[in-house]
Amino acid sequence: MEPHKAPLQWISKEYYELNGNHVEILHHPPSPVEFSRLAHISRPVIIKGFQIPAYKLWSTEYLVQRMGSQKISIAVTPNGFADAIVAGPGDKLYFAEPLVEQMTMSDFLSKLSSVSHSEVYYLQSQNGNIHSKYDSLSDSNGDIAPKVSEFGALKRDVPSDVSWCSKAFGKSPDAVNLWIGDSRSVTSFHNDPYENIYTVVRGAKHFTLLPPTEGWCLKERLYPHATYKRSSTSTLMLETSRSTNNIRWSSILNPHLPGSLHPDAHPIHITLRPGDTLYLPVGWWHHVRQSEDLTIALNWWYDLEMRGMTWVFLSFLRGVEDVPSGNEDSGKGRDKITSLVEEPPSNL
Amino acid sequence: MEPHKAPLQWISKEYYELNGNHVEILHHPPSPVEFSRLAHISRPVIIKGFQIPAYKLWSTEYLVQRMGSQKISIAVTPNGFADAIVAGPGDKLYFAEPLVEQMTMSDFLSKLSSVSHSEVYYLQSQNGNIHSKYDSLSDSNGDIAPKVSEFGALKRDVPSDVSWCSKAFGKSPDAVNLWIGDSRSVTSFHNDPYENIYTVVRGAKHFTLLPPTEGWCLKERLYPHATYKRSSTSTLMLETSRSTNNIRWSSILNPHLPGSLHPDAHPIHITLRPGDTLYLPVGWWHHVRQSEDLTIALNWWYDLEMRGMTWVFLSFLRGVEDVPSGNEDSGKGRDKITSLVEEPPSNL
Repeated sequence: MEPHKAPLQWISKEYYELNGNHVEILHHPPSPVEFSRLAHISRPVIIKGFQIPAYKLWSTEYLVQRMGSQKISIAVTPNGFADAIVAGPGDKLYFAEPLVEQMTMSDFLSKLSSVSHSEVYYLQSQNGNIHSKYDSLSDSNGDIAPKVSEFGALKRDVPSDVSWCSKAFGKSPDAVNLWIGDSRSVTSFHNDPYENIYTVVRGAKHFTLLPPTEGWCLKERLYPHATYKRSSTSTLMLETSRSTNNIRWSSILNPHLPGSLHPDAHPIHITLRPGDTLYLPVGWWHHVRQSEDLTIALNWWYDLEMRGMTWVFLSFLRGVEDVPSGNEDSGKGRDKITSLVEEPPSNL
Repeated sequence: MEPHKAPLQWISKEYYELNGNHVEILHHPPSPVEFSRLAHISRPVIIKGFQIPAYKLWSTEYLVQRMGSQKISIAVTPNGFADAIVAGPGDKLYFAEPLVEQMTMSDFLSKLSSVSHSEVYYLQSQNGNIHSKYDSLSDSNGDIAPKVSEFGALKRDVPSDVSWCSKAFGKSPDAVNLWIGDSRSVTSFHNDPYENIYTVVRGAKHFTLLPPTEGWCLKERLYPHATYKRSSTSTLMLETSRSTNNIRWSSILNPHLPGSLHPDAHPIHITLRPGDTLYLPVGWWHHVRQSEDLTIALNWWYDLEMRGMTWVFLSFLRGVEDVPSGNEDSGKGRDKITSLVEEPPSNL
């Protein structure tokens, strides 16, 4: 294969031949300089022995008691697919955003894995819901309105940064997020412009990872936008958006279905259990499932290093032109809708 | 421009737009974690305040006295172009290796910038001539013959590693090299598979740098191999090699000649004077001149990190196929020979 005639295929093959599916496991958190080296290699690392108060404190009772009557923003979908490609009006595929409803922690937790609920609830607000870089801005500068976090009562259980990571990158995280859901919630394949430290407090998270070099195997396509709303009978309905801005998203809806991934893709499967921490480097593609009735996770997002090659190469690997519509071919569209049937995570 | 139709041009343009010609200057050596971050960004950095005994000790008298009758290996050429493209038999261009002759330090230094010598002498043995990773191997393992360094008498004046660099990379250097020459010696454009810490002890070194992304601007071509030998009258003659292995080398012989560099190249010019240290990241292209009668430099080569993306992308940027011969077109060959006339470094 010649590098400049099929560049993405050549790069992904060379990258795999050099790196394989290796995931390093550290039995203690790294020193800052050790972590800096790992970030330079930019491959996933599983880190044991990270200590945060939330691991010990966060029983259901504790969370309910601490949060009290505080309302929190919860994503609601009929099927657990929020920010994902789903079949909608006119037998077309859409990028669907969830309905967001406010409820107390107590109400939310009682809805998780409850057989009486056909709807799926997921705490995924991912806006720095525990800590945000804007917190300190608003503290120190009176003319910026302080951002009121829904999770102020839990802040003290979660460090505002990961010290070895902040020292390695020379900066604080942009956002620290709390994620709570059950086995029905699935996060579809995507990547983030952040370095990510991800830790599981309760339950289990199952990641399927692909390196940035294999993004072309995920067949990004353009999909029209839609959002779940409640109908007059309170049923969840997909409301299409008048916006003409299509969303670019992976067409691989369930990498666990046999044959759904391109044969040149080399997925890495990682399960995190309580106390396990994953370094997920910037640009790595991830699809995430949960296998317990209650899974609680936290993550710290650090801005990527824009200087140097990283951003240029990530942009190159993702390409920027010629992304076709995901609804282009009705026959293929039908195949995709079929593949929406998510296999239960039986083997987790 | 579309990324996958002209990938090298697209990448080099994006890289330049993001990074410009920026070279960071540090007024003190960095800490290991600071240096690790700089190595991740992989752009040149000028470092002031690095301290090694050689800066103060290495007068001409000291070098002559310490080295005594020890013979050292010196590259000899008629024009200062060793390991470079030069015109040879049949009006063809060759990759020419120097004649290597043994002499004392005293003899060598007396030949530098001497008007009575039409030949150009350069100490460039670059085989770990001061320290080598094989030194410690031979020390600790009796059945490997210890390598005898020609510069054993100077070892103690040069640290065997750069501590902030070794701690950042988590390893010792592969080789520490001494370079001595005058303004007539030129190092032609090339890049190395090493992270490089380069410091000037006396004189001045003038680097012209291009990022790995602009390697395509250097027009690498295949050249037949030749080596300088002494004829029966002791004149230096270029002897062509019977080997059919052509050498792949840049066709840009003098980037200081107007118009010689591709208009999309963005050269960075850096001058190092005594006590100045350059971090030259792996894969960066460099052309090097000297402007004084006696320039002494040292460098520490650290193996690059093979894991991750670095090597794959450097390979991609260099490409591996379709390198044409540098002697393909006789008209163009003539242009190239003309451009061999190196401008005197008048503006240095």
